Amino acid sequence: MRQSQLFTKTRREAPADEQSKNAQLLIRAGYIHKEMAGVYAFLPLGLRVFNNIVAVIRDEMNKAAGQEITMTGLQDPAVWQATGRWDDEVVDVWFKTALKNGSPLGLGFTHEEPITRMMKDHINSYKDLPQMVYQFQTKFRNEVRAKSGVMRTREFVMKDLYSFAKSQEEHDQLYNTMATAYENVFARVGLGDRTFKTFASGGVFSKYSHEYQTVTDAGEDIIYVNREKGIAINEEVYTDEVLADLGVTKNDLTQEKASEVGNIFSLGTRFSDALGLSFKDEAGDEHPVIMGSYGIGPARLMGVVTESLSDENGLVWPEEIAPFSVHLVALNLEDSEVRDWADGLYDNLTTAGVEVLYDDREVRAGEKFADSDLIGIPYRVVVSKKVKDEGLLEVVTRATGEVRQLTEEELFADFGVSRNA
Amino acid sequence: MRQSQLFTKTRREAPADEQSKNAQLLIRAGYIHKEMAGVYAFLPLGLRVFNNIVAVIRDEMNKAAGQEITMTGLQDPAVWQATGRWDDEVVDVWFKTALKNGSPLGLGFTHEEPITRMMKDHINSYKDLPQMVYQFQTKFRNEVRAKSGVMRTREFVMKDLYSFAKSQEEHDQLYNTMATAYENVFARVGLGDRTFKTFASGGVFSKYSHEYQTVTDAGEDIIYVNREKGIAINEEVYTDEVLADLGVTKNDLTQEKASEVGNIFSLGTRFSDALGLSFKDEAGDEHPVIMGSYGIGPARLMGVVTESLSDENGLVWPEEIAPFSVHLVALNLEDSEVRDWADGLYDNLTTAGVEVLYDDREVRAGEKFADSDLIGIPYRVVVSKKVKDEGLLEVVTRATGEVRQLTEEELFADFGVSRNA
Repeated sequence: MRQSQLFTKTRREAPADEQSKNAQLLIRAGYIHKEMAGVYAFLPLGLRVFNNIVAVIRDEMNKAAGQEITMTGLQDPAVWQATGRWDDEVVDVWFKTALKNGSPLGLGFTHEEPITRMMKDHINSYKDLPQMVYQFQTKFRNEVRAKSGVMRTREFVMKDLYSFAKSQEEHDQLYNTMATAYENVFARVGLGDRTFKTFASGGVFSKYSHEYQTVTDAGEDIIYVNREKGIAINEEVYTDEVLADLGVTKNDLTQEKASEVGNIFSLGTRFSDALGLSFKDEAGDEHPVIMGSYGIGPARLMGVVTESLSDENGLVWPEEIAPFSVHLVALNLEDSEVRDWADGLYDNLTTAGVEVLYDDREVRAGEKFADSDLIGIPYRVVVSKKVKDEGLLEVVTRATGEVRQLTEEELFADFGVSRNA
Repeated sequence: MRQSQLFTKTRREAPADEQSKNAQLLIRAGYIHKEMAGVYAFLPLGLRVFNNIVAVIRDEMNKAAGQEITMTGLQDPAVWQATGRWDDEVVDVWFKTALKNGSPLGLGFTHEEPITRMMKDHINSYKDLPQMVYQFQTKFRNEVRAKSGVMRTREFVMKDLYSFAKSQEEHDQLYNTMATAYENVFARVGLGDRTFKTFASGGVFSKYSHEYQTVTDAGEDIIYVNREKGIAINEEVYTDEVLADLGVTKNDLTQEKASEVGNIFSLGTRFSDALGLSFKDEAGDEHPVIMGSYGIGPARLMGVVTESLSDENGLVWPEEIAPFSVHLVALNLEDSEVRDWADGLYDNLTTAGVEVLYDDREVRAGEKFADSDLIGIPYRVVVSKKVKDEGLLEVVTRATGEVRQLTEEELFADFGVSRNA
């Protein structure tokens, strides 16, 4: 894409009321727009990153045999009353509204209830199990505080997957499949080395639930990390009993601030009992379905990546989720020969399948470089009259600052594409 | 995908309270699930069709130089008060809710106001124009009646594009670009021959707006169609003056029921004046930006396609939006040689890039054929012991009922793919 046509502008200063580093940088770079506290729009660059994260998650969910659907924001009170979660005293993040006739409706903050009811249409027999069903769905949560940028918002897309099993053993298999899928997601978005499977409080149906926590100063949680084993313990269950369960001592653990980037949870029969989701076994006897739920918020991941990887000059995107692979920064465009050559290089890279943001704007070099650092595309390729004359492109790796001099041929080879595709 | 693994089940009867043909068929075929009146979830098959329609629209918007963003459902009253559209007496479809501190919020039923405010951050100069910005965003509309299935719902995704121009002439160009893009969309989703650019009432800034209306018995509107010119007139502006404007007489027109599948609208400076969106011209003088808005609802399109193209046996999908291209219906699977061969054909088609739903279930042939008609995939390929022995596949075109006998080689060639990809 030509940057001269991109409608968003970068800005030198973040809004005065924006406290979080992630929102400050994402707003300055033109990735997001703040509608209100805790409510953000995604602009073209931000939507590209968001969609890339969604694509990674979708790929891992599909590989794990998840089937994608989309449920609804508007929620029927009846199904929540059946599980006791309609009451604002029980759930304190409801946004509620009403039909014209006065009937109350909720805005979904999660979807266990509606999916359990829906699955009654599709699960009757042991032959219909196991199943894993997921969606990317907007959740609404009436948070009292919303000061962590895109990491905690009042409206956000969540990937929520629900598993349905006929036995505890089958459930445990699905649960472990999801744990692996989650670890793949965190590795692919660039957070693998600082994200830990964290033991947290369970419920009636399991001793623990598991959170995935990424170590970051912006985190809202305290965890105790054992890097050797790659696990952590949430402060809420940091007891001698849990330490003994996991075979670690306090000396093996370091206290860290961390942000929860995903959780996986055994629900047992809590929802299937309340809503009557059951199956018949081979003998014709009826049993409640055993469920699990598994959540990741793509925008929170984007926020945590920003908090974790950005530097004093701006954003730094891992390759798999970057909005573009190459930032082609062209100088001396007043020289028509340079412009023609730069245009040609852009066309050739794009035709070869490389995603390029082409800074073809007529602004000062300093402004281009500052914007390029701020926007944080993995590779910056600088072209200018000097580069054209000398035949060597300057390629800068955003994350490390490494500078290489490459010929055009070498540049194309570096991206694994042919120059004359 | 193997149908034995698809979690949804078809059903012989639609829910008793479902009046519309589109929802009846889509529910029976397992494409959608009714949460409440006017609120539907999309199941795997339905989501595939929905996503295919979205992909067609996105492609046409991108070709027209639209830039994609995502705004928010939660709406700040301030920006709507500035244009006079917060009042329930003025806009009768608001869903409203509130923050914990009691501050009211709206749920967006359209997005002119927030995008106009947002663009103030990005438009300052004539150099920043023109722009076209769009999103696929969930709209909430508190409809009193919701009896038309997915054609009119209380919660639905809309593609809404907004154009920003520095002159009326520039606006008219953008408007015409969008008109062409819309016509391309309707052709690609299979409604081109029955969808008409329809003159409807304009506003302060233009004599007419344009709707795209698809002729269907399920339509809620009355239009007067001139097929020769490919245009129509909405009943609301069916006057002698309009007939004269368009150079047609009552004799040239036939009255039809129709459903609005899109609209394009010149907004003039209504929103830019109210919210202060302006640009400086080359002389440094300030002018309000001239805007347009352009909407299509993918789910409404899906509903109108269902109403228009389905038959007494079920759904009929045009190829570009079908959930799969081929329904591979396998009989005699109790014979392991037949099963191995059918599995191999499925694998080969899938590997070659053909999207296949493979009915590998162990149910009666009659049930398979009835389900196949109901689900409505464009091509049904039947395999059985007889077919295996004789070497000729039976290929049935769902829309026409045409039956062909093809060898495997011919089948692959028919889809333009190699058998040994």
